[in-house]
Amino acid sequence: MWNGCSRRGSIVRMKRFKFPRLPVGWLVLMTAVIAPGPGTSAAEWSTDGAGREATISTEAGPSYESDGRLKLPAHYREWIFLSSGIDMSYGAAKSGHSMFDNVFVEPTAYREFVRTGRWPDGTSLVLEVRGASEKGSINQHGKFQSGDLMGLEVHVKDTKRFQGDWAFFSFSEGPGAAKIIPTTAECYSCHQQHAAVDTTFVQFYPTLLSIATVKGTLSPAYGAEEAAKR
Amino acid sequence: MWNGCSRRGSIVRMKRFKFPRLPVGWLVLMTAVIAPGPGTSAAEWSTDGAGREATISTEAGPSYESDGRLKLPAHYREWIFLSSGIDMSYGAAKSGHSMFDNVFVEPTAYREFVRTGRWPDGTSLVLEVRGASEKGSINQHGKFQSGDLMGLEVHVKDTKRFQGDWAFFSFSEGPGAAKIIPTTAECYSCHQQHAAVDTTFVQFYPTLLSIATVKGTLSPAYGAEEAAKR
Repeated sequence: MWNGCSRRGSIVRMKRFKFPRLPVGWLVLMTAVIAPGPGTSAAEWSTDGAGREATISTEAGPSYESDGRLKLPAHYREWIFLSSGIDMSYGAAKSGHSMFDNVFVEPTAYREFVRTGRWPDGTSLVLEVRGASEKGSINQHGKFQSGDLMGLEVHVKDTKRFQGDWAFFSFSEGPGAAKIIPTTAECYSCHQQHAAVDTTFVQFYPTLLSIATVKGTLSPAYGAEEAAKR
Repeated sequence: MWNGCSRRGSIVRMKRFKFPRLPVGWLVLMTAVIAPGPGTSAAEWSTDGAGREATISTEAGPSYESDGRLKLPAHYREWIFLSSGIDMSYGAAKSGHSMFDNVFVEPTAYREFVRTGRWPDGTSLVLEVRGASEKGSINQHGKFQSGDLMGLEVHVKDTKRFQGDWAFFSFSEGPGAAKIIPTTAECYSCHQQHAAVDTTFVQFYPTLLSIATVKGTLSPAYGAEEAAKR
């Protein structure tokens, strides 16, 4: 069963998606992604005690085109960071480029998870894949994340829209809008069978794992898998 | 000169600092870190368009004890994520445990950097070091971040307080408050000499590097180093 469920498949698919190197197309995307402005999603502004402005990028649930494609959450880099991994694979070892992945969650969903250990309807998680560089500036060993954005996938909980409550979208064509990944894809069955909380891999998000453990919201299947190892 | 400037030195120092494994002391810390509540720093609450609550953790600049020790920013995990690295070293290769580092910046400072390419007074960046695991749950290859929090360092810009404007603090004794790292330590001279923007290693933060490039705020020393490689 595990052979049919490999993060590698997902990464390989994402490798087709590569923005041009700095400073051409990537800058255009990232300027759109990180620069707040009027009319961009539901980002709100408030003023803290020191009189400086701070933004909060709630984006209030997923947003779709009329044809059902998911819009890229414009401010995902300002969402709550859950964790990073490097070259993770659930099956065979990866070949090719070394890549980091970063996972972010929309802040209102994060807040609800902290409170209850569960994901509310409207939760979005973004998986961002970046190139891993070794030599660069003064770094001599180990790896750091490069400007090469190599993939973006979004995992959305929208119970009224999706059978099974959740759907995956891969922005393999660029940062505009993405079609749903067909529900026959292995990512669905793998997340269903092995994810620690509600089809999400909370076992790889250290600050959330402790919360789910305390709140008692780990899935029975995950609990059984972990118990079987002991 | 580079021999005297090694991220490894910093990592080695941090290895002394290790929270107990889950679920004992680490949970206590992380509950304090991530659970919002009355009286915890300057975290603010607002309501988005969907009627759900979202928090914004501005923390409005660094906070010190009366003896000058820096208080740990309680909500740093809700700050803006800049990047992760693994086993980075500016000198000799590291030995021992494999570790990830995550860097977060306080949101109001981030917002100002996006606008201007410069860090405002009161900027805090947090370097969080975590264990890197390979085998775990269904992961077979590559590495993911574990629950082992192995170090926390904070880099603070406070021009009225510190000669040279910036100071480093290592929470090597735990999450309470930390003494300043003496300004004779190599981290100061290394950041001064090699960091891309205002003593911060923006060259390793891909979304910020493009901003600093566009805004023209890269340090002359960094520009000369990069030019010499071409």
